[in-house]
Amino acid sequence: MILMLSITVAFQFCFVFVSCDHGDKNVIIDLSYSYDEETLFWPGSDRFVHTIVQRGPTGVFWYESNKFEMGEHSGTHIDAPSHFSEGKQRIHDIPKEHLFGPGIKVDISEKASINSDALLEVEDLKSWEEENGIIPNGAILMVFTDWGRFYPNRTAYFGSDRNDSFTDENGKSLLHFPGVSPEAANWLIINRDVVGVGIDTPSIDYGPSLTFSAHVKLYEQNIYGLENVANLDQLPTTGSTVYALPIKIKDGSGAPVRLFAVADDVGTNSAESMAFSLFILQLDCLLLLMMSV
Amino acid sequence: MILMLSITVAFQFCFVFVSCDHGDKNVIIDLSYSYDEETLFWPGSDRFVHTIVQRGPTGVFWYESNKFEMGEHSGTHIDAPSHFSEGKQRIHDIPKEHLFGPGIKVDISEKASINSDALLEVEDLKSWEEENGIIPNGAILMVFTDWGRFYPNRTAYFGSDRNDSFTDENGKSLLHFPGVSPEAANWLIINRDVVGVGIDTPSIDYGPSLTFSAHVKLYEQNIYGLENVANLDQLPTTGSTVYALPIKIKDGSGAPVRLFAVADDVGTNSAESMAFSLFILQLDCLLLLMMSV
Repeated sequence: MILMLSITVAFQFCFVFVSCDHGDKNVIIDLSYSYDEETLFWPGSDRFVHTIVQRGPTGVFWYESNKFEMGEHSGTHIDAPSHFSEGKQRIHDIPKEHLFGPGIKVDISEKASINSDALLEVEDLKSWEEENGIIPNGAILMVFTDWGRFYPNRTAYFGSDRNDSFTDENGKSLLHFPGVSPEAANWLIINRDVVGVGIDTPSIDYGPSLTFSAHVKLYEQNIYGLENVANLDQLPTTGSTVYALPIKIKDGSGAPVRLFAVADDVGTNSAESMAFSLFILQLDCLLLLMMSV
Repeated sequence: MILMLSITVAFQFCFVFVSCDHGDKNVIIDLSYSYDEETLFWPGSDRFVHTIVQRGPTGVFWYESNKFEMGEHSGTHIDAPSHFSEGKQRIHDIPKEHLFGPGIKVDISEKASINSDALLEVEDLKSWEEENGIIPNGAILMVFTDWGRFYPNRTAYFGSDRNDSFTDENGKSLLHFPGVSPEAANWLIINRDVVGVGIDTPSIDYGPSLTFSAHVKLYEQNIYGLENVANLDQLPTTGSTVYALPIKIKDGSGAPVRLFAVADDVGTNSAESMAFSLFILQLDCLLLLMMSV
């Protein structure tokens, strides 16, 4: 009995050291592209323009200040649900509790590498869960297509070099890049409780879509979108907290967002495992006490 | 001996329940004002302008999209060190590790209530530390003046109703609001290791300043500023993590920022206290084991 208890306590020691150690080694992953003259914007939309107002010495101190203009949906950005759904949340309506959550990465880069119109399908979500467990409530689900390797090359990233229109003279889409199938969007809505869906392409709907069904379905449920997400190759499959913080534009249909992930966050996993560890230790103590009395 | 141990273990139980409980009750405080037609901007700088591009049904789906323009230093924003210091960090240079940290609130609202030109002084920092302990490394230090109660009333908030200039015809400042003294900035630089200094007024330098000494001193050390911070009355004195996430403007001298705090964050305080609690519990177990053998 004493031997068993000794082993348990020794195990706990190791466990605690590992938990605490994680806390000091948080890895921060910046999931945002810079806004600059190369920032990609939806064909026909408004580019990012940065203008120097003042830059130089004033006689008393150095001073630099600039102004900028942009479409709400340029570069790494958030789509508010109102972007494609009447009466749904605009930027300032999105609950602050939805601006961060467990980061989940679903990798469809293999099929995207041989098909630029590849889609996240229901079976991708199901097989992800078989390997990694149920997608947690409040998750921010990221679809990794490896399209980031093309950014900011417009032709490769959008499948078209035109920045003025996404359709040809017959009204057919010119674009090719991976996205989310309407069925997968539906499955998420019915079966899981994610707050947002992000992707490393220009749009959560794939290039050829003209119905924007994934947008419509998700945004109807006040689930937001994240587009042109950067550095998704660095995001772990699970075990991170994603922060998606848009600037708070009143009545915005979207907004530039500073997006980052903290992997191995003490704030989530390690704290939970420590709590579990405490519970076991307390049982140990009680057993020992009972034996001593 | 057994009685003492029992008491210790009972105490630990309470402690652990309190720690775990905190984790579930994270309070999120939004420290950002909305960007809208009322957004305050520095006199002579560029206002926030939001333009509807499209809003309505397309026949297939609802669609809304807008564009906007603004000065980098409008509303709740971050000053990059380069704003007042040549060659120092611009927005895209700020290390991602500096974009969040322990939130510290120093309250000078009492003296500000009777003097609109009140300053955070060295003695305020020292007396804060006497009560709350050393300002932790990596902290984002917020100066609470209670000026948020005036926002967005320009006359009350800036001490002047003019939005075109902050000086009169004799070159004297027209402005009145609290700020940070150069001595306090110096003390922080020499003695502590904060990553940013924020305030709930238009500027970290007080209204009458024309030398902007707090800006110059802090930014020279690559310590950034946060201005027009909202809801500082809700921020606890200690025990929060502040997230200051600017949109990543390449070569920006500043940027709009989504600023928020998570109080009682499991990620920081509670996790540490749980780790401490575990350590004590382990000692208990070892003692009991030794007694049993």
